[in-house]
Amino acid sequence: ALVTLISKAAVEPQAELLSETVRHDFRGLLAGKTVTITAGPTREAVDPVRYISNHSSGKMGFALAQASLNAGAKVNLIAGPVQVMAPEGVNLTSVQSAQQMLDASLSVIGETDIFIAAAAVADYRPSDVADQKMKKQPGQDNLVLHLVQNPDIVATVARHVQRPFTVGFAAETQDVEAYAADKLVRKNLDMIIANDVSRTDIGFNSDQNAVTLLWQEKSTLQSHSPEQAAKQDLAQDLILCIAHRFHQGNTDDA
Amino acid sequence: ALVTLISKAAVEPQAELLSETVRHDFRGLLAGKTVTITAGPTREAVDPVRYISNHSSGKMGFALAQASLNAGAKVNLIAGPVQVMAPEGVNLTSVQSAQQMLDASLSVIGETDIFIAAAAVADYRPSDVADQKMKKQPGQDNLVLHLVQNPDIVATVARHVQRPFTVGFAAETQDVEAYAADKLVRKNLDMIIANDVSRTDIGFNSDQNAVTLLWQEKSTLQSHSPEQAAKQDLAQDLILCIAHRFHQGNTDDA
Repeated sequence: ALVTLISKAAVEPQAELLSETVRHDFRGLLAGKTVTITAGPTREAVDPVRYISNHSSGKMGFALAQASLNAGAKVNLIAGPVQVMAPEGVNLTSVQSAQQMLDASLSVIGETDIFIAAAAVADYRPSDVADQKMKKQPGQDNLVLHLVQNPDIVATVARHVQRPFTVGFAAETQDVEAYAADKLVRKNLDMIIANDVSRTDIGFNSDQNAVTLLWQEKSTLQSHSPEQAAKQDLAQDLILCIAHRFHQGNTDDA
Repeated sequence: ALVTLISKAAVEPQAELLSETVRHDFRGLLAGKTVTITAGPTREAVDPVRYISNHSSGKMGFALAQASLNAGAKVNLIAGPVQVMAPEGVNLTSVQSAQQMLDASLSVIGETDIFIAAAAVADYRPSDVADQKMKKQPGQDNLVLHLVQNPDIVATVARHVQRPFTVGFAAETQDVEAYAADKLVRKNLDMIIANDVSRTDIGFNSDQNAVTLLWQEKSTLQSHSPEQAAKQDLAQDLILCIAHRFHQGNTDDA
């Protein structure tokens, strides 16, 4: 799969970024490094039985966890409620809400070298969680649900004093790359993966995906758009690029 | 499993209801009859990626579908998004929203002898579904989600001109049997299954359940409370009681 991947990457301009060493030694790419990945949706309780959630399947985040393992990293996978099996060898933490996902992310931030926020975190949660199941009132045709903003996990991590190399996701239905570029800068991220979730053939519940990876180099926006592929192949490609940029950044700093 | 079931049922007062014929011929109990069962949660779209749903696993409804098949019925299973496999031999219709579940239920009402509403239908849905993913606005800490009441599927079926024998569920977290009795009368149901979903050891995502079946006979409230059991054993017990009452009602009418 790696050979296929590299031959695909070779037709892309950004393939020049990938050093010969990286291409031929995927297994050691992240040896000794810890990658923390959030994945899946969050569920925000309305009452004991109801919740607000989204259609994230967790497949992309889980594929990135597998690719990180393949690259030799220690992997913390912090996952909302999903139906996919966690790759063998990851340190899995299962959570429900955005607040729980943030707490789990911050509890491992000190050991994390690369943080990839692949989860589809609910932006808002109900302001009050009812203790008992809300009853439908006869004649009450309308109901107003008051929501408050959830903590922004990837922005919190990117602004943290123990800030790891931070990669975000932008799952959008329109103006996908423009929104992603804005989010990259606004949230102080190192890279962002832009994902058009309006296409039903790829994305949230599909096994295929097509994304664009964006980052800045010397204040210039760079992008890498692998061809549409199975999520596990795409994840290998993305981890290759993320690891390259991570090592390049560390070298620049030195 | 049927033998265990009957010996359990024998310690219950309502076991007297079950005729010797019924006890010894579960396989033919609903031969030639059509049972339509709704199961699982519904998902009500907020925008292309977000939805409101609930914790129903669909296991109880699917177990009732299997028990109805075992009793010789033709079974229509109308299921929201669930992760359980449909029993082989059912006529499965997969739906997302309450409106879709109602449409599917009404499309088979003419052929349905017994309707069992085991789905956890969302009472409310967002009044407007956004075409594009809603964007979090900077500084907008609060959001108000306007909801409108969904159609009441079991009440619509129970008031229909082609009304089948109609069985509802009351999944409650407090005053469970009182709410169930009220719902039985208010929605014009033949029977109702009262389910305490506040207990974490049984109910929504568990393989075990404990319920009370309620109905009226000559304006007196009757109840049957099988012991806590695996959902498939409990489903056999419930179908036994439901089929008995269904046949009894048909005899009374004659």
